[in-house]
Amino acid sequence: MSRRTIIGVMGSGEDARDADCEFAFALGKLIAQQGWVVLSGGRNMGIMDAVSKGARSVGGLTIGIIPYGNADLASEAVDIPIVTNMGSARNNINVLSSDVVVACGHISSGTLSEIALSIKAKKPTILLGADTLAFQFLSGIGGDLIVSAASPEETVQKISEFLNPAI
Amino acid sequence: MSRRTIIGVMGSGEDARDADCEFAFALGKLIAQQGWVVLSGGRNMGIMDAVSKGARSVGGLTIGIIPYGNADLASEAVDIPIVTNMGSARNNINVLSSDVVVACGHISSGTLSEIALSIKAKKPTILLGADTLAFQFLSGIGGDLIVSAASPEETVQKISEFLNPAI
Amino acid sequence: MSRRTIIGVMGSGEDARDADCEFAFALGKLIAQQGWVVLSGGRNMGIMDAVSKGARSVGGLTIGIIPYGNADLASEAVDIPIVTNMGSARNNINVLSSDVVVACGHISSGTLSEIALSIKAKKPTILLGADTLAFQFLSGIGGDLIVSAASPEETVQKISEFLNPAI
Amino acid sequence: MSRRTIIGVMGSGEDARDADCEFAFALGKLIAQQGWVVLSGGRNMGIMDAVSKGARSVGGLTIGIIPYGNADLASEAVDIPIVTNMGSARNNINVLSSDVVVACGHISSGTLSEIALSIKAKKPTILLGADTLAFQFLSGIGGDLIVSAASPEETVQKISEFLNPAI
Repeated sequence: MSRRTIIGVMGSGEDARDADCEFAFALGKLIAQQGWVVLSGGRNMGIMDAVSKGARSVGGLTIGIIPYGNADLASEAVDIPIVTNMGSARNNINVLSSDVVVACGHISSGTLSEIALSIKAKKPTILLGADTLAFQFLSGIGGDLIVSAASPEETVQKISEFLNPAI
Repeated sequence: MSRRTIIGVMGSGEDARDADCEFAFALGKLIAQQGWVVLSGGRNMGIMDAVSKGARSVGGLTIGIIPYGNADLASEAVDIPIVTNMGSARNNINVLSSDVVVACGHISSGTLSEIALSIKAKKPTILLGADTLAFQFLSGIGGDLIVSAASPEETVQKISEFLNPAI
Repeated sequence: MSRRTIIGVMGSGEDARDADCEFAFALGKLIAQQGWVVLSGGRNMGIMDAVSKGARSVGGLTIGIIPYGNADLASEAVDIPIVTNMGSARNNINVLSSDVVVACGHISSGTLSEIALSIKAKKPTILLGADTLAFQFLSGIGGDLIVSAASPEETVQKISEFLNPAI
Repeated sequence: MSRRTIIGVMGSGEDARDADCEFAFALGKLIAQQGWVVLSGGRNMGIMDAVSKGARSVGGLTIGIIPYGNADLASEAVDIPIVTNMGSARNNINVLSSDVVVACGHISSGTLSEIALSIKAKKPTILLGADTLAFQFLSGIGGDLIVSAASPEETVQKISEFLNPAI
């Protein structure tokens, strides 16, 4: 079995905040250093771009699930663009293909749909840097599937706990 | 131009609460009486079933966007089952095909994804019977696109306002 | 049970031939006169436009499964645009939602994908006006699911036979 | 830019012929030896399984676009399962994500839909081991996009010509 562990990192595109992108870059680096594959929405901006660049900076493998009909607007740090031409319907593919889902930073409508679909698919879902209101509301829907993390390091630790429940 | 006005009504399936289903039935009836088409997720349970039955009870037209590969589990009150075989990715079709989106009752993960995708698509989105926490969180993301309503009657009035902004 | 019988009519958009569009208009009319719903790819050109206009000309109900993210380019004769934003992936929805599939006229790449997906889904598939080579090749893949018809009238008769095998 | 070249190899699952699977294994090996990524429909049978195993046998990277809602039925030789839960609608993702598309062996309905969608997307499309009737019919629709090859070696040569038109 040659299957790789895939960590999905979701977050804003054009509206992403600088501090969130710094977290995403650091997170991508840490994920790749664990030997895991980074999967994102694949666009050339915001969290998707930053997490892919972080992973690539240490030689990690990066997958981008592209909403458009070709890869012209894929992040240059995406190794494997999966071209869906499905717009936001591709968000369901993002979460179904991930072993663990991370929502990085401020939650926009697109990211919220991914958190919701992730709960629906019963995937462990980590909110990195979410505020109290978001955590309270989303925990009410997702229960134990929703956990919060305050840093990229804590996020990677919680991913490990989900992947290896006994440890 | 023969295009019909389409109102999407989203809500839980197996986990729907009785009071929410009563609201959905009444809402389906009121929507149909306005001459609008009811669109739902099309399954034979919960809000989807109830809103379709309400609309059919007064002769309205009902569309169901089915997540499965055939229409065997469609509500018997759906006139036109659109068979997608796309699971929850069909939620994006639900909102894109609706002029106004209503989330009826308690918000489950599937319904939350539809609210999020509706905001993303810039569709007017009415929360019928949502609690304060949900309205506060979702307004923070969707701004003016998110409004709340306390009854089926108020919901239909707000739909009218969205469809006819000048009135 | 209020479910309607749905006949999917597939064919070219910009490249459709005039004679094929005349067949599509006549076919839409005949389908609607049987009380069946016409489903098409929904665009405002070619076979999709013609079959919808034919059905509307006698008061029939028309569904269009739109490949784009809104209904701006839907045929004006489509009553219910289902907005998928999925490009050609929506072709699978076209065939899954139809009780019988008709490919009208010259077979382009898009229509060919619908014929193939129709066979895959085990839907009865009628080739209206196809040439001998097409029929020979497609019968080799689809077997008894593939039948040919030379006119709109013959097409409707064959649809009836598929819907009512005992007659 | 870290983007990899992706070659899509399409073909039957349960109905695949032994000789076609041998071609698929050899082709996967040759593609991987060129440094290209192998993309397939990802299932654990037929051409999809064989081409992935061929690529893995020489250390190549393999992507599988899975039609189901999880990766349980993915080929054990798929490194990266992309889980779509979209059934045959995922066929469009297969071709859009590939730089060149190869249809390997006997053409079933699923593979035919991929060839058709590949023409629609204007992707170079190689028929490996197709019969004369198939080539004649598909060339009539796809023109210069459709070429045939008689062996895995010839297929790889033609892929190279498509990727490097000047050579």
